[in-house]
Amino acid sequence: MNTFGRKFKVSIFGESHGEAIGVVLDGVQPGIPLDIEDFTADILRRKSGPKGTTPRIEADVPEIVSGVYNGLTTGAPLTILFHNRNTRSGDYSLFNAVPRPGHADYTASIKWLDFNDPRGGGHFSGRLTLPIVAAGVVAKKMVTARIHAELIEVGGVRKRGGEEALPDGGIEEKDSWREVLDQAMADLDSVGGVVECRTDGLPAGLGEPFFDSVESLVAHAIFAIPGVRGIEFGDGFAAARMRGSEHNDPFDKVVDGGFQKNAIPSKNGAGGVNGGITNGNPLVFRVAFKPTSSIARPQETFNFATGKMTTLQIPGRHDTCFALRTPVVVEAMTAIVLADLSRLL
Amino acid sequence: MNTFGRKFKVSIFGESHGEAIGVVLDGVQPGIPLDIEDFTADILRRKSGPKGTTPRIEADVPEIVSGVYNGLTTGAPLTILFHNRNTRSGDYSLFNAVPRPGHADYTASIKWLDFNDPRGGGHFSGRLTLPIVAAGVVAKKMVTARIHAELIEVGGVRKRGGEEALPDGGIEEKDSWREVLDQAMADLDSVGGVVECRTDGLPAGLGEPFFDSVESLVAHAIFAIPGVRGIEFGDGFAAARMRGSEHNDPFDKVVDGGFQKNAIPSKNGAGGVNGGITNGNPLVFRVAFKPTSSIARPQETFNFATGKMTTLQIPGRHDTCFALRTPVVVEAMTAIVLADLSRLL
Amino acid sequence: MNTFGRKFKVSIFGESHGEAIGVVLDGVQPGIPLDIEDFTADILRRKSGPKGTTPRIEADVPEIVSGVYNGLTTGAPLTILFHNRNTRSGDYSLFNAVPRPGHADYTASIKWLDFNDPRGGGHFSGRLTLPIVAAGVVAKKMVTARIHAELIEVGGVRKRGGEEALPDGGIEEKDSWREVLDQAMADLDSVGGVVECRTDGLPAGLGEPFFDSVESLVAHAIFAIPGVRGIEFGDGFAAARMRGSEHNDPFDKVVDGGFQKNAIPSKNGAGGVNGGITNGNPLVFRVAFKPTSSIARPQETFNFATGKMTTLQIPGRHDTCFALRTPVVVEAMTAIVLADLSRLL
Amino acid sequence: MNTFGRKFKVSIFGESHGEAIGVVLDGVQPGIPLDIEDFTADILRRKSGPKGTTPRIEADVPEIVSGVYNGLTTGAPLTILFHNRNTRSGDYSLFNAVPRPGHADYTASIKWLDFNDPRGGGHFSGRLTLPIVAAGVVAKKMVTARIHAELIEVGGVRKRGGEEALPDGGIEEKDSWREVLDQAMADLDSVGGVVECRTDGLPAGLGEPFFDSVESLVAHAIFAIPGVRGIEFGDGFAAARMRGSEHNDPFDKVVDGGFQKNAIPSKNGAGGVNGGITNGNPLVFRVAFKPTSSIARPQETFNFATGKMTTLQIPGRHDTCFALRTPVVVEAMTAIVLADLSRLL
Repeated sequence: MNTFGRKFKVSIFGESHGEAIGVVLDGVQPGIPLDIEDFTADILRRKSGPKGTTPRIEADVPEIVSGVYNGLTTGAPLTILFHNRNTRSGDYSLFNAVPRPGHADYTASIKWLDFNDPRGGGHFSGRLTLPIVAAGVVAKKMVTARIHAELIEVGGVRKRGGEEALPDGGIEEKDSWREVLDQAMADLDSVGGVVECRTDGLPAGLGEPFFDSVESLVAHAIFAIPGVRGIEFGDGFAAARMRGSEHNDPFDKVVDGGFQKNAIPSKNGAGGVNGGITNGNPLVFRVAFKPTSSIARPQETFNFATGKMTTLQIPGRHDTCFALRTPVVVEAMTAIVLADLSRLL
Repeated sequence: MNTFGRKFKVSIFGESHGEAIGVVLDGVQPGIPLDIEDFTADILRRKSGPKGTTPRIEADVPEIVSGVYNGLTTGAPLTILFHNRNTRSGDYSLFNAVPRPGHADYTASIKWLDFNDPRGGGHFSGRLTLPIVAAGVVAKKMVTARIHAELIEVGGVRKRGGEEALPDGGIEEKDSWREVLDQAMADLDSVGGVVECRTDGLPAGLGEPFFDSVESLVAHAIFAIPGVRGIEFGDGFAAARMRGSEHNDPFDKVVDGGFQKNAIPSKNGAGGVNGGITNGNPLVFRVAFKPTSSIARPQETFNFATGKMTTLQIPGRHDTCFALRTPVVVEAMTAIVLADLSRLL
Repeated sequence: MNTFGRKFKVSIFGESHGEAIGVVLDGVQPGIPLDIEDFTADILRRKSGPKGTTPRIEADVPEIVSGVYNGLTTGAPLTILFHNRNTRSGDYSLFNAVPRPGHADYTASIKWLDFNDPRGGGHFSGRLTLPIVAAGVVAKKMVTARIHAELIEVGGVRKRGGEEALPDGGIEEKDSWREVLDQAMADLDSVGGVVECRTDGLPAGLGEPFFDSVESLVAHAIFAIPGVRGIEFGDGFAAARMRGSEHNDPFDKVVDGGFQKNAIPSKNGAGGVNGGITNGNPLVFRVAFKPTSSIARPQETFNFATGKMTTLQIPGRHDTCFALRTPVVVEAMTAIVLADLSRLL
Repeated sequence: MNTFGRKFKVSIFGESHGEAIGVVLDGVQPGIPLDIEDFTADILRRKSGPKGTTPRIEADVPEIVSGVYNGLTTGAPLTILFHNRNTRSGDYSLFNAVPRPGHADYTASIKWLDFNDPRGGGHFSGRLTLPIVAAGVVAKKMVTARIHAELIEVGGVRKRGGEEALPDGGIEEKDSWREVLDQAMADLDSVGGVVECRTDGLPAGLGEPFFDSVESLVAHAIFAIPGVRGIEFGDGFAAARMRGSEHNDPFDKVVDGGFQKNAIPSKNGAGGVNGGITNGNPLVFRVAFKPTSSIARPQETFNFATGKMTTLQIPGRHDTCFALRTPVVVEAMTAIVLADLSRLL
């Protein structure tokens, strides 16, 4: 289903080229100040920079349809709409016969028996991350923790001065990703990236053992973002290559004179979670985004109408690296999970 | 909560040193033959080999309390119990004051206000994977797909002849993991591992876009296993370092004369899922397990009773690499997700 | 929460005098023809006749925002909006200090800390039954059963020629309810009513024992309609006054030569459900609606601002009997439950 | 499914003549004292008096399998088992061919394809109310409100000195129900009854508008009890025959000097709920139980094996009025709902 959460529930809807896309938030705390301007920064972050971005320009002004009165959330379901304007229908009929490699064209047609709206990816479009970002804006206001996600790697190139080198070695570090993006563009190709998200100021005690572990819930939400291929917490996959003595987080930091609730593990190999429950350390995880599926380069693939291989050239301009635009989406998903866990506490 | 699933619901309960641990399965298909012997193989796999295993010996014979009549599932909730026998209480009182690094001792005491059962990790014990394995045995009977998980890496050493070398380079390949385990044991330390799970024979069309994507559900269930630090599907984190032309799965395989439903992408960089929905390819993912937290080696950590650092030596014998015992747990979780998705189809 | 259903999920939102009210339907079957005109009949039924109705006139034209493409449902979440037009703000500020007897003014202010939108009842308005009716229109298309609800009693007067006399005796039967309504109107007062809902053509086997019994789910949905005071299935409360020999439904009807699946109990004292599961008989239940809370007559009640009793005269024209407009809402809720159960079968 | 609740989750399992029946409670507050003796009183109430009860004698001693440590709840899932002892298998094979009127024999066989355990009603047995009563014992400890249910009517005879006469007239009032029960027994027949449940001391603000209204949740849980035919809140069905001026609850009671939170409606026609949310008044509802289905009297019904009508005489001794034993079950269900709502507050 397109719904997530137990006490703070997020439901998204809409198609890329339909009337509108949007989100319903149920269980919003009453009394939170909320204005259209509150959404601007995060919506702009989702649009990202000039190169490596999708060419489609949308006003992307949220319309608050319900749940806000006199500038404050009421407690009732909060609905936000984004009207679609620049919809170029007719571009997409081709993809019924020749599903684009890496897209959901094929699986959507299996799932929904060819009734799927094919225009712009329909409901499967990355445009649906827009209402998720809007939900994140509200969710961030419901948690006191500070959530920050940023891109740490593009096309295999690590950001200099960022995180400590991961133990897997072969990643280059460069001053910028400009060169990587330009080269991919010149090759009519695309690149992926890795986003790291860190949340400071979380209380200990969020989450549950086993099925509602913090990692379970965060991973659930993160894999709802199109294009995610992996997630790892704390030391992540590198932990599998460590010794226990190296990976374990001994307790050794005492704040405010040693009161138990403030003691936290000094390293953070667990990424802030033990036994599924936050331990008071920052929640840290990394997300792998695949390279953009739509590339300008012709691809050999199957034509279901003719039963033969064909060369597909996807029309239009393309995003060289959609991962550039995802940190704010990762933040939004994290905020959604944490807002729900906070309300359940 | 300790419950997972929408139409096939799994609820686990119990503490390591309590009366019993167990699982309730709601939504089991009626008419499935089920016998105590059906559980033996998977329960034994969870016990693993002589070295690198936990020393505690349990009979681990499942008791079917409800939901089976005349050797067939009835459709009513199916409850399986495992009585705890070899319970050594008294070993664990120390950990209230000195929570073990890497364990849930501390977070459990925050979450449940010190009322947590501390014996053997209580409800947070890895022993709770036993009812999960039992649930997996039933779930596997509910799906026609073939689920297989195996260890592909231990302590940073790749299995020779296993998967193609991952693109991150520095992993050694050896004939066996004996040496790695022996060395860790000699050092009174522990190692982690990576498990790969592959499911063949899945129908296309399972899962939903966004929040109930196959990856979301699988990752949710997998992170409910204690000790998981990361999960990746298909090309995984490596995808973030690929070009789109390299990662995309073009359709090029036509089975049975080209009927659409049989066409599947020839590569499997997506791990069998597009847009959150299975595409007919094998579902492939990898899971990173941290090194065992309990090590024989003394660790410097904080004593909450004295307010000072202390040297903790965890008594008893220790598992050198609990990851050795996890492939069957990963299989079980996968089966639980797929059984639910199949019932919802 | 404002969400109902497991596989067919209905989420409603909006406030009476806000921008719009609406509904998101997740899990709609793909390929169902759906047009704006499909909603007209049921929306008109909700508006009911000239007397005893609310004076507010709304165009009430649904706007399908998502989930329909080329006149067919796509399988993606289907969102329907109704824009509010005739919103008279300013009428309602009084009710913060003097909550109207029988309304949610007081409980909303407790629940949502006075941030509730008070205009027209805000989210608690009976106007929210409009998106429910719209959801019902879609749900009815997802089930083959024929659902019909009608008013059988108004202001204590039974419809002549309707159901057999209930065993509780004292109900008058009249040719019409005109007189009852006129008298209530003349007295500046309101009356309640009883709606009966009957569903024919249901397959046997829907529902579950215990917590997801058909009665549990139907009652859950029905009590979500504002103003419901009771529900009873089959013989209902009268069953409590029957002997077992009288109430039991013996099997005695064999259709199509006695094939087991067609055998159904000849009486229908159980209202079509045994052990929580449909038995193939019509599903029959009755719903009691209270008299309209808003009456023109002055009422003595408490003024929270002054701390004294006061005489409240609710401004505006009033609905003499909102129960007249509820049969279509009852049908909608029934359809929502049955669509969900059908998808889960 | 056999699970109820969002934050306090109750899952029941077991068959009447299987190994054991039981319940898992997830989300129990940690630190609640809990002892086997705590269950005795409610379990005895469920057994009720000498006449009109089921002849089967069970020790019915709960076994706490998990979730309690040193006499206190831990916060982990709490599992309670009741082993079945006096199981007379072989009594029930007849009912495959000749499903008992009023029982779930037929619908179970449709639902679960004849794999249902037929012994003693299997999972559909009224014996499953025993784990519900046990869940209620724990739930009652989680809420501060005082929940009390009692029988107010048996076989159409109202308890003298009980509630005010309901407006439907024809109910006799007698000094005791002895006569009614004796007569039914002599006639080899059974009678039904009405239970009233009243909860005092509830905070205002529990519940949600629409789908999670208090009435929706209570009705959902109550209809999970076998044999329920109707439920009504406050004035109930009688409200449908009242004028608004008569049914409305004006605010007129000011406690402790008029502080708003203590002001509550003086009448209680709404049964303690407005707009789905508790208003601080007692929660009051009534439940109609049908007469016991199993009667000693022979019944004409259909034999599915022969395809002909047959005379069925159900062997064994029978409960003349199982409603006598239900008040404690109604209390338990109410406590389960209120414990969940309290945890969600």
